[in-house]
Amino acid sequence: MDQHERILIGDLLRCPQGQVDVSSFDAAATPGARGGRKEAPAQMDELGAELSELQERLFARGRAEPQQARRMLVVLQGLDTAGKGGVVRHTFGLVDPQGIRLKAFKAPTPEELEHDFLWRIRRELPGPGMIGVFDRSHYEDVLAVRVNRLVEESVWRARFETINRFEAELAASGTHVVKCFLNVSKREQKERLAARLEDPAKYWKYSSSDLDTRSHWDGYMDAYGEVLQRTNPDIAPWYVIPADHKWYRNWAVARIMLETLRGMQLTWPPASFDVAEERRRVARS
Amino acid sequence: MDQHERILIGDLLRCPQGQVDVSSFDAAATPGARGGRKEAPAQMDELGAELSELQERLFARGRAEPQQARRMLVVLQGLDTAGKGGVVRHTFGLVDPQGIRLKAFKAPTPEELEHDFLWRIRRELPGPGMIGVFDRSHYEDVLAVRVNRLVEESVWRARFETINRFEAELAASGTHVVKCFLNVSKREQKERLAARLEDPAKYWKYSSSDLDTRSHWDGYMDAYGEVLQRTNPDIAPWYVIPADHKWYRNWAVARIMLETLRGMQLTWPPASFDVAEERRRVARS
Repeated sequence: MDQHERILIGDLLRCPQGQVDVSSFDAAATPGARGGRKEAPAQMDELGAELSELQERLFARGRAEPQQARRMLVVLQGLDTAGKGGVVRHTFGLVDPQGIRLKAFKAPTPEELEHDFLWRIRRELPGPGMIGVFDRSHYEDVLAVRVNRLVEESVWRARFETINRFEAELAASGTHVVKCFLNVSKREQKERLAARLEDPAKYWKYSSSDLDTRSHWDGYMDAYGEVLQRTNPDIAPWYVIPADHKWYRNWAVARIMLETLRGMQLTWPPASFDVAEERRRVARS
Repeated sequence: MDQHERILIGDLLRCPQGQVDVSSFDAAATPGARGGRKEAPAQMDELGAELSELQERLFARGRAEPQQARRMLVVLQGLDTAGKGGVVRHTFGLVDPQGIRLKAFKAPTPEELEHDFLWRIRRELPGPGMIGVFDRSHYEDVLAVRVNRLVEESVWRARFETINRFEAELAASGTHVVKCFLNVSKREQKERLAARLEDPAKYWKYSSSDLDTRSHWDGYMDAYGEVLQRTNPDIAPWYVIPADHKWYRNWAVARIMLETLRGMQLTWPPASFDVAEERRRVARS
């Protein structure tokens, strides 16, 4: 770890406590980055090597002692084009696919709507030693649901407390919850939507409903502001990731994962067998 | 595609029809490889770029036309240490995690045993546009189950036909099934097991039951031989991957995936909206 690496990106990007004005965060900032876009690939490779090793330790512990194994859950939230998919590909693509449990939550199905909003979430929680990644999450039930007035205010407002209890329960059972709000600016979103319409290889990523969501921009900013204020405990912190620069966004999430895994002080599990005896058995085999 | 790339690795490694003697396959061979281990990383990067694009086209098609979308299912089989996990990490790690559905099948649970052997398999089949990867599969029901005499011969023997019908059904519904037998030699397996006992970071990968399986080596070779003979139709072919060299094993599976995807002639889906009109809407937004 060189001098530069002593700067904790998690500290720089941790959402402050108290009232939050989302528009005050600079979506084009690159705090803590050593170089620019050009140096990003080499830095990602470097990060990837350590990330991979720590992820493997987490996984190995999960196999060796499933009853008391830790897990990690990374929640990715952000408006269309903020780059949730890009982070999955470029950041989580750095580590062994076997250790990642990925779930993209869409609009709830009729069956899901028959249950409490956390029902479908609980079914996708990571197992022992796994890193769960949610592309959208239970936060849509206090974001899209609120902005689109799908339930009464008293209903969605009560969910903040429900979510805090849920995440406290996760933390208590050994799940390290990390929440990333990918903060794209309104101007950058427009450019990305326009770019999808210029390239036939990107048409499939475009939906005309994206513009409906965009037309509620201020409503989403208010909703995100309240989410960040009401659901930001130390045991399940929010990070605000500037997302106008893709290279920075991917790198910052990788760094936060790395710092979280380092903090878990993961060691390899001890042998559950007599090593000397097994060496003899292999030699004879 | 340079001259070299015109050699189809799939053709070189396709298991021949008819009776098969597994011991006749050279596990240390490297057919079709341009360089050796040193050149492998650069070649994997090169392959990865095209694999990623084709995988994204498959995925995009799955989104755009789920009712008629194609899928891919890669079955990985092989004895302990053959490198099923290594292929998942290094080969499938080349593409977007969002497009991969990975399932490692363990010994069946009591619930799974209450159902037909294909019940748990069907639940893990890839969705539209996805690449499913099975680390072990329904083939264990004619391999481990046979060698360990868990059911009568008449029961496992009838499964060859059941499997052929099942895979024909998959092919008919648009799933490209690719089956890879990772062929490790008995000598190399011994070295790999011994290596796991020399490195505390690998203890967790070792199980003393691996030696019990190893003690049934000849039984497994016979069982694999019959699998390769009886379940090798063109619509769900078996490839025999020499697996003593890890770099070759990973590269060969990547090449076979690439060749399969190329054969699917995947194009980007057309826009499902009026592009000019949406461009105007974005400009106004």
